[in-house]
Amino acid sequence: MRIAIDAMGNDNGPTPIVQGVKQFLEEDHDTTVVMVGDRDRVTQAMIEEGIGLSKRLELVHASQVMEMEDKVADLREKRDSSIMRLVAELKEGRADAMVALGNTAAAVGAATIGLKLLPGVRRPGIAIAMPTRNPKRPCVVIDMGANTATKPSHLVNYGIMASIYSNRVLGLSQPRVGLLNVGEERSKGNVELREAYELLEQAPVNFIGNVEGGDIFSGECDVVVCDGLIGNVVLKASETLASTMSGWIKDAMLATWYTKIAAFILQGQMQKVKKRLDYAAYGGAPLLGVNGVCLIGHGRSKAPAVASALRTARESVTVQVNKRIREHIERMRNSVRLKAAAEGGDDASTPTDRSDTT
Amino acid sequence: MRIAIDAMGNDNGPTPIVQGVKQFLEEDHDTTVVMVGDRDRVTQAMIEEGIGLSKRLELVHASQVMEMEDKVADLREKRDSSIMRLVAELKEGRADAMVALGNTAAAVGAATIGLKLLPGVRRPGIAIAMPTRNPKRPCVVIDMGANTATKPSHLVNYGIMASIYSNRVLGLSQPRVGLLNVGEERSKGNVELREAYELLEQAPVNFIGNVEGGDIFSGECDVVVCDGLIGNVVLKASETLASTMSGWIKDAMLATWYTKIAAFILQGQMQKVKKRLDYAAYGGAPLLGVNGVCLIGHGRSKAPAVASALRTARESVTVQVNKRIREHIERMRNSVRLKAAAEGGDDASTPTDRSDTT
Repeated sequence: MRIAIDAMGNDNGPTPIVQGVKQFLEEDHDTTVVMVGDRDRVTQAMIEEGIGLSKRLELVHASQVMEMEDKVADLREKRDSSIMRLVAELKEGRADAMVALGNTAAAVGAATIGLKLLPGVRRPGIAIAMPTRNPKRPCVVIDMGANTATKPSHLVNYGIMASIYSNRVLGLSQPRVGLLNVGEERSKGNVELREAYELLEQAPVNFIGNVEGGDIFSGECDVVVCDGLIGNVVLKASETLASTMSGWIKDAMLATWYTKIAAFILQGQMQKVKKRLDYAAYGGAPLLGVNGVCLIGHGRSKAPAVASALRTARESVTVQVNKRIREHIERMRNSVRLKAAAEGGDDASTPTDRSDTT
Repeated sequence: MRIAIDAMGNDNGPTPIVQGVKQFLEEDHDTTVVMVGDRDRVTQAMIEEGIGLSKRLELVHASQVMEMEDKVADLREKRDSSIMRLVAELKEGRADAMVALGNTAAAVGAATIGLKLLPGVRRPGIAIAMPTRNPKRPCVVIDMGANTATKPSHLVNYGIMASIYSNRVLGLSQPRVGLLNVGEERSKGNVELREAYELLEQAPVNFIGNVEGGDIFSGECDVVVCDGLIGNVVLKASETLASTMSGWIKDAMLATWYTKIAAFILQGQMQKVKKRLDYAAYGGAPLLGVNGVCLIGHGRSKAPAVASALRTARESVTVQVNKRIREHIERMRNSVRLKAAAEGGDDASTPTDRSDTT
């Protein structure tokens, strides 16, 4: 197996990525990692970290970088950027999976254009596994910002894809899929959400109905489907709230000499709390729906997060996530066709046809 | 001053509300509270709590209750419900402010229909003050779920109204107003958000541009404008994440006999952390934009939250929030008119005209 990674997509240069790759290669003995980026800068980082190119570590040169402020349209001017070269590795069969880091919009754009979408998928979505009250059941929230103009048919795609991801990669059986809304009743929310509700009822997923914001963390739901704007806002709000609370607790512990002693006693246990909150432990976020295994990581990823993303990429290839998505979406399209035929017509205006025809 | 409160809007019956009213009347010596609800049940709760009717505590009978599962349309069949009678108190001049609890959609519907909107306001919005890293600057998030079909012109209304609320009630000077989006650049998000950005730039508020989910808690922003679906999801997700984290910390503290001792030492300091997180301390959530002072509280509110909502209602009347909103919106409408005139036409298709003409 070969996994390609964007060596330039870190705010602190190639070093954290090289460190993460090194860490991954030490624990894995079958995978080849292909680093894509500026030859001189990556080589320099490799020398510093004491690793060299080998049968299991290759380097592909790319002279340009998509910076954080670059827009998707800038991909046209940056055809030799590391993200474009990364996608080419996958597209041209030289890699089985890719790990993009840094500019998320550029990664989504390059992957969508370069790899194309799986048959029947209208839009790709970024899925992130969030920690919940149940340590054994992380909750996959999709979409985390790949798409901010989401239609009901996209939400149904998300439900199917994330359900397969939760099952195959996170190992949850019969993942419970919820539609993020302002209340549980099916009449809640706006017209798009009501349409998505109807479509999800007919989709090949374990749909449990509308769920509320709290259900992301409650452990009552395994997949939460929402538009990219909401997903992005909730993810960032949660990260900041968690770190704000951690800061307050730290202040409380450092308030007096005796609270400092108490804090010292609690150190080991508090580390466990911190670890539960650490999204990095769950690995990079898959971009589901593109025709290829594509993981997206943060531009501030440190070495363990990079290694974790590589692990998730390997796992996604092994369990054939995309093959399953293809099958499930095909099954849904067929059931819609059969239903339309049974109802004595080829009426394309039934709601369930949208994911197929629009 | 007279404040009316829905005595039936609590999941646990009138008792917590009667307790909260009692608490409020003990610290306040000028306000009359009008409780609206079933005469027998409220009287029973008053007897249990040892208070009676007086010059400062009145009771208005209402034979019906809008239950949590009732929809706005059900208001037509429940004309003698406590929420309808509550709104009538305000509408007919027998109260200066109202505190609704329980079914939020019913409260928003009854207040909008009964009190009407302030001139120039297209939709009301629920504002909630959230705790931030800066203990002196809570962040007002608007809308928390009054409206799930939000247009750019509604978002501008929200920015103006919440800005005045932050200034007059929370005492923040020059509140920094941010538009909730997936990134800071003005090109981010969907077409509605880009239009709202342009409108907010021209509105009489201290607009600082797009903000991200994390800025609700970062202390970098005083007013966050968003649609009701996102606001509702973020509020509920934050509440559950905070309580989930608190649960983990509690588990950590009860893990062994020595962590229990440490927990005992930290007790006082941890209470402070808990208090910072307690939204109830900030009082009920104002429904801004209706022609009357209207506070909305949770159906699970306990006595301190009820007392706090009454305090916020009193404060909102004193500082004349609605008068200021009226003035600011009028000023904005005039500047749009002047601009249109200066540009030599009555072209109603300029973006800034939307809040005025559509």
